[in-house]
Amino acid sequence: MLRALELARTPGVPLGPNPRVGCVILGPDGREVAEGFHRGAGTPHAEAAALHEAGELARGATAVVTLEPCNHTGRTPPCASALAAAGIARVVFAQRDTNPVATGGSGTLRSAGVDVAAGLREPEAREVNAAWTFAVEHGRPFVTWKFATTLDGRSAAADGTSRWVSSLASRRDTHRLRGACDVMLVGTNTVAVDDPELTVRDDLGEPVPHQPLRVVMGERDLPADRRILNDRAPSLHLRTRDPGTALEELFARDRQHVFLEGGPTLAAAFLEAGLVDEVVAYVAPMVLGSGRSAVADLGVGTIGDARRFEVTDVTVLPHVPGDTEEPTVHQTDVRITMRPQRTRGD
Amino acid sequence: MLRALELARTPGVPLGPNPRVGCVILGPDGREVAEGFHRGAGTPHAEAAALHEAGELARGATAVVTLEPCNHTGRTPPCASALAAAGIARVVFAQRDTNPVATGGSGTLRSAGVDVAAGLREPEAREVNAAWTFAVEHGRPFVTWKFATTLDGRSAAADGTSRWVSSLASRRDTHRLRGACDVMLVGTNTVAVDDPELTVRDDLGEPVPHQPLRVVMGERDLPADRRILNDRAPSLHLRTRDPGTALEELFARDRQHVFLEGGPTLAAAFLEAGLVDEVVAYVAPMVLGSGRSAVADLGVGTIGDARRFEVTDVTVLPHVPGDTEEPTVHQTDVRITMRPQRTRGD
Ligand SMILES: NC(=O)c1ccc[n+]([C@@H]2O[C@H](COP(=O)([O-])OP(=O)(O)OC[C@H]3O[C@@H](n4cnc5c(N)ncnc54)[C@H](OP(=O)(O)O)[C@@H]3O)[C@@H](O)[C@H]2O)c1
Ligand SMILES: NC(=O)c1ccc[n+]([C@@H]2O[C@H](COP(=O)([O-])OP(=O)(O)OC[C@H]3O[C@@H](n4cnc5c(N)ncnc54)[C@H](OP(=O)(O)O)[C@@H]3O)[C@@H](O)[C@H]2O)c1
Repeated sequence: MLRALELARTPGVPLGPNPRVGCVILGPDGREVAEGFHRGAGTPHAEAAALHEAGELARGATAVVTLEPCNHTGRTPPCASALAAAGIARVVFAQRDTNPVATGGSGTLRSAGVDVAAGLREPEAREVNAAWTFAVEHGRPFVTWKFATTLDGRSAAADGTSRWVSSLASRRDTHRLRGACDVMLVGTNTVAVDDPELTVRDDLGEPVPHQPLRVVMGERDLPADRRILNDRAPSLHLRTRDPGTALEELFARDRQHVFLEGGPTLAAAFLEAGLVDEVVAYVAPMVLGSGRSAVADLGVGTIGDARRFEVTDVTVLPHVPGDTEEPTVHQTDVRITMRPQRTRGD
Repeated sequence: MLRALELARTPGVPLGPNPRVGCVILGPDGREVAEGFHRGAGTPHAEAAALHEAGELARGATAVVTLEPCNHTGRTPPCASALAAAGIARVVFAQRDTNPVATGGSGTLRSAGVDVAAGLREPEAREVNAAWTFAVEHGRPFVTWKFATTLDGRSAAADGTSRWVSSLASRRDTHRLRGACDVMLVGTNTVAVDDPELTVRDDLGEPVPHQPLRVVMGERDLPADRRILNDRAPSLHLRTRDPGTALEELFARDRQHVFLEGGPTLAAAFLEAGLVDEVVAYVAPMVLGSGRSAVADLGVGTIGDARRFEVTDVTVLPHVPGDTEEPTVHQTDVRITMRPQRTRGD
């Protein structure tokens, strides 16, 4: 299973609507005879790839898979029947597949006389596809809210200038996080004011091959010249102010992980709706004393009603060379990753 | 010298106007024959303690000291003459003593025919007495500005409530930092509004034996019933609004390390005067969206004029058990320690 998990995590596999899956086929003597992993939507599933490699050796063998084999004919035939047809005697899988369109693989396998064991290293397997798992189980995409702030909670100075609050190291890190999502979401006003392109670029500033969907949310029209509407990546305008409706629409389009970049008004709407699942704050070691607030009014009147988060990671982002735009020699930002706090008794 | 530094760092030595010093006496064969350290103002200096222990063995021996032996008759006689009189043949010291009243020990030793070597492990020795060294070299105390903030730069909610932004772990940590200073400084308005006692307490809430001086700064009178004026620790009202004057006055009272706790108005005055040498920010993982700003207006209009800091330490302060006052199960604060940023070319 550890090897199957490693395969599932193979770097470079493009994110898409499908989960990342690894499969190892073991002969009756316990030796590996074949392996496979899923390379993204439209390509063979991990089990199919491994069966193909195993050929006749699949007969009487054990298939170790990170996710319950699917029961669903999509762009590829169902894996549960394929495993049974190839003569696999035993299937061991980690994560149960509760995706309504794919679930039921275990049943199909058992009816075909295949021995099935579930749940081995399930937590690690869930983690490999955390956003996919969340989306399948909650019927909506996972939402990561990212914001950048000075130590005193400002996102821009009094005159509106904000280049740069975050260091180059933080900006590069943000692009890496964006690239791990399949939607980047902003409000109409950020598009009106800042005209961001919202593409994902690598450390050299080149666009990466697989771009997330760029989504703008809000009722007003967007001028056609906005950079977010250019042809460098797909974009979508959701003419709604309701975070729930927006997520429903994105889920219907097979999107599983939204990177909510602001502005403050849109972020506040998601927070108030309880639709933020992860918070990533980039804290820059500077104070402004005045200027724009990084977080908009949330209707919190007293300290007991503060929105509290549970810290899951603190990472120091040291200065990277080549940051010629910074006015100072070294800027070390701190990235704090959090999830909404469960209250006592939960 | 490593042993001498260890002696200088002996835990429990009360902070006072004097530096922490360690001394080891080595016989002609290089073996240690005696050692001593300074236990605080009014007690023998490290050299005197070591000479006392060495007795006749001091004759022809080498004294290894973390600080240049003093040349000054204060509450104790000058160490330079004492070392020469005891027959010490060689003195090796780490940090030069530039304190005007004590300097010149090397000259006195050399005139008495003692061989002198300086500078061995000087950086470590300076670090042992960082605030003392700073104060001697700059003619004013070292200033640490501490503030507590939410992720969005608030120190209290809209209704003024702030119990607690910081976790118990942060509050205990603050008491440890306070205890390492010899002055705690606040503005008259914090005393008027919050009536803090400003004593240093240990993890059990008991006052520690050596309390820093509690100082209030500002022109208005203080009502006599304020807790900062109680008899649990010494206090002082500096009737000035000028940070430079205040530091001069504190330096004249042999104070070397000021812990500036606020409020925001006083902190801004020190920042604007360039009189903050270290910044300690406790960042709590929560957002308020409104409420009091943790940092007051600094007259910064544009991002290029932001007050930038160089990060020297980032420490995660995990939840400590016993935090019954917190509304949530776990609060992990992040402490970021910084010094003012030198700009490019400095
Ligand atoms: N610090 C950071 O990380 C960061 C990130 C992004 C932006 N910013 C800054 O934020 C500023 C823009 O902030 P903003 O808050 O005005 O813009 P915003 O949040 O991007 O957009 C606000 C607009 O979104 C629409 N909207 C959609 N859903 C809504 C809802 N549920 N409630 C209210 N409005 C909703 C509304 O416009 P309609 O009338 O069209 O519905 C509203 O005017 C810019 O200056 C930008 O530089 C900072
Ligand atoms: N987040 C934190 O870590 C923290 C820490 C402490 C306090 N606080 C909060 O801060 C609030 C009080 O803040 P504050 O800013 O009003 O109080 P403050 O800074 O404690 O006191 C301001 C007063 O200090 C005097 N002062 C001395 N030197 C001055 C100078 N150079 N410039 C201007 N004034 C000077 C002035 O009064 P005179 O007229 O007497 O000269 C001024 O009104 C309280 O609510 C408290 O809870 C927060």
